[in-house]
Amino acid sequence: MTASYETINIRLDGNVLSATFNAPPMNLIGPEVVRDLVALLDELSHPTAPRVVIFDSADADFFFPHVDLTKVAEYTAEAAKAGGPGDASLGMLFRKLSRLPAVTIGKLRGRARGAGSEFLLACDMRFAAAENAVLSQPEVGIGTPPGAGAIQHLTRLLGRGRALEAVLTSSDFDADLAERYGWVNRAVPDAELDAFVAAIAARIGGFPRDALIAAKSAINAISLPTPAEVRADAALFQQLVRGEKATQRTAELFERGLQSRGATELGLGEALGHLPAVD
Amino acid sequence: MTASYETINIRLDGNVLSATFNAPPMNLIGPEVVRDLVALLDELSHPTAPRVVIFDSADADFFFPHVDLTKVAEYTAEAAKAGGPGDASLGMLFRKLSRLPAVTIGKLRGRARGAGSEFLLACDMRFAAAENAVLSQPEVGIGTPPGAGAIQHLTRLLGRGRALEAVLTSSDFDADLAERYGWVNRAVPDAELDAFVAAIAARIGGFPRDALIAAKSAINAISLPTPAEVRADAALFQQLVRGEKATQRTAELFERGLQSRGATELGLGEALGHLPAVD
Amino acid sequence: MTASYETINIRLDGNVLSATFNAPPMNLIGPEVVRDLVALLDELSHPTAPRVVIFDSADADFFFPHVDLTKVAEYTAEAAKAGGPGDASLGMLFRKLSRLPAVTIGKLRGRARGAGSEFLLACDMRFAAAENAVLSQPEVGIGTPPGAGAIQHLTRLLGRGRALEAVLTSSDFDADLAERYGWVNRAVPDAELDAFVAAIAARIGGFPRDALIAAKSAINAISLPTPAEVRADAALFQQLVRGEKATQRTAELFERGLQSRGATELGLGEALGHLPAVD
Repeated sequence: MTASYETINIRLDGNVLSATFNAPPMNLIGPEVVRDLVALLDELSHPTAPRVVIFDSADADFFFPHVDLTKVAEYTAEAAKAGGPGDASLGMLFRKLSRLPAVTIGKLRGRARGAGSEFLLACDMRFAAAENAVLSQPEVGIGTPPGAGAIQHLTRLLGRGRALEAVLTSSDFDADLAERYGWVNRAVPDAELDAFVAAIAARIGGFPRDALIAAKSAINAISLPTPAEVRADAALFQQLVRGEKATQRTAELFERGLQSRGATELGLGEALGHLPAVD
Repeated sequence: MTASYETINIRLDGNVLSATFNAPPMNLIGPEVVRDLVALLDELSHPTAPRVVIFDSADADFFFPHVDLTKVAEYTAEAAKAGGPGDASLGMLFRKLSRLPAVTIGKLRGRARGAGSEFLLACDMRFAAAENAVLSQPEVGIGTPPGAGAIQHLTRLLGRGRALEAVLTSSDFDADLAERYGWVNRAVPDAELDAFVAAIAARIGGFPRDALIAAKSAINAISLPTPAEVRADAALFQQLVRGEKATQRTAELFERGLQSRGATELGLGEALGHLPAVD
Repeated sequence: MTASYETINIRLDGNVLSATFNAPPMNLIGPEVVRDLVALLDELSHPTAPRVVIFDSADADFFFPHVDLTKVAEYTAEAAKAGGPGDASLGMLFRKLSRLPAVTIGKLRGRARGAGSEFLLACDMRFAAAENAVLSQPEVGIGTPPGAGAIQHLTRLLGRGRALEAVLTSSDFDADLAERYGWVNRAVPDAELDAFVAAIAARIGGFPRDALIAAKSAINAISLPTPAEVRADAALFQQLVRGEKATQRTAELFERGLQSRGATELGLGEALGHLPAVD
């Protein structure tokens, strides 16, 4: 691992790579983050790449707040560079993440909403700080289904009833509820989270690579959505997010402080409930 | 929504419809309830129908105790009116419920057994009063597998081991265990349940209809059983429920007070354990 | 049931058979246990066999520690006797267990690792002593994916993230965590476990056999892996367990006391973390 990235801090410790998202002012998933993620996933696809990767955030409040809604075309164009024709979506990029030979662990503090949650769902496992982690899929509240994997992963992980609740309410889920529903593997006290994840990563990092890859591949064969499913969700998102209602509701949210550090982004679940009702 | 129903009290509040089952003396699922449900689901299929429906019961002890076992042919004939040929079953009627454009929320107090539980499983989400909700599939204890969706939904929601436990033991599950197993989304203290469900319904009711429908449809595509699966379960039920053993055990239960308010219906899980063992 | 078995103590009580594994010194799954299991499953396949079977262990520390790693060829040859060509694996034997007409209940005290856990996963339900039960799939830490059903069952029961955690970390799971993840139906206090399981077994034992078989078969149709999936996992295991890395790591574990009663077997999850890291 020799590359360095503008928006991802990299640190290698034995077989374990730490990748810390650092895209001030608030870690929005925009063209730069996607560009760097495409490059990092390429590096991690090599047979000699580190066996384990821990993803976390340099921003205590935001793992990833969501995509940069002013740059959907731009970050989608960056995502397209990861794959072939038809793969121009975060969903297909995250599917590539799920299929890496490296084992990926999401370590969540703060908010992971929208594609931020979908990034974590594409990781092999995810652990959340009990006191401050927040997960949500706010898309329906804005005007579109989630488009980068949440439909697929939440339905399989949570079951129909809880997936419908999470997706249709667009509510914020705290770590405890996210654990009970299966959105994260476990909620861990914030003070113990680093050591907890480091121990798992070091343990896996010492295990035979062939066995890790074969086991992950076998589990993926049962549990990952098909490319067709991922592409359909992405196409629907890209259509509806540009539609009249999502455009209008996004504009209203920007007036209230969307994509700025502040009450609307910190409490986006609540803010969505205060938007005017529409048909 | 202009229709009124003999066995369902309807109240519209903005985009949220409350539908309260009220079929004295004890809310058995008989021909009248099924007739009214067929008509209500037809109304809710219209594009201008309310966006959210809350289902509950006017009877504090019984959401739905189960079907009227003296009128299987009659209520099945009513259910047939909801669909085409081959759809003469509660299972296919409940599958229609699951595919409504409206978002459906089950609010459970008291007992929901047999097709009562299956009705709730067909809703998009369900919340149970922590102190008094009871769910069960008593069918196997009587002499047939459940026929209206429980096999399909419980296996997907609870996984093989817990679904087998629920179905093969025919035991009563309280709200806490039902939540831990995933039979309901959450157990909520009875005193908070109305406000909790009303808040979710109002929130969803203000979100864009297109996004709600598209998201629900995408989740359904992954999680709903196929018509062939539903029909197979219904056919098996309709055969075995008329078989020698189920007929005999049903008769024994009637002698002990089945379909009357009293100890047998209140504690049906226990009553099933007291029936004579058979081969 | 007239047969007796060298490594399984049999006791019939009405419709409920208790089968207690007793293969001193520590209940390794070797050729004798597999031979007896093949014979017992044959007996249980008969239409007049007991309706319910409870599996437990005569060894308080070990339900099954894992297979006898010195006799993979031998126990596999025994397993082959249960099925036709292509079925020479514990995985296919355990699939036969899952499809028995009898209802099977695993009662777990002590450790069930590797194929011991996979045996329990193939049972219809499993209950674990809260104070002392331990489950794990240690295979990846040794150098191969699990080969006898864990990949299939854990992915379906726990979901992708938790199945990956369980399989890739090869860690010991206590009863509480196993319950939260869905690896067992429930953790039950040790002092209540016998009565708890006996009550479930007696209850099911009095229910109509036709309904039990039909319901189990319908749930299996949704939840069991296909023979092709089971065979693929078995083939991969049989290849990698004989590979260079697994051979070396197994040898290192034997030097530390594998397959003897002692610290390494009691704390195998920890012991795996102390093996030298490999590529």
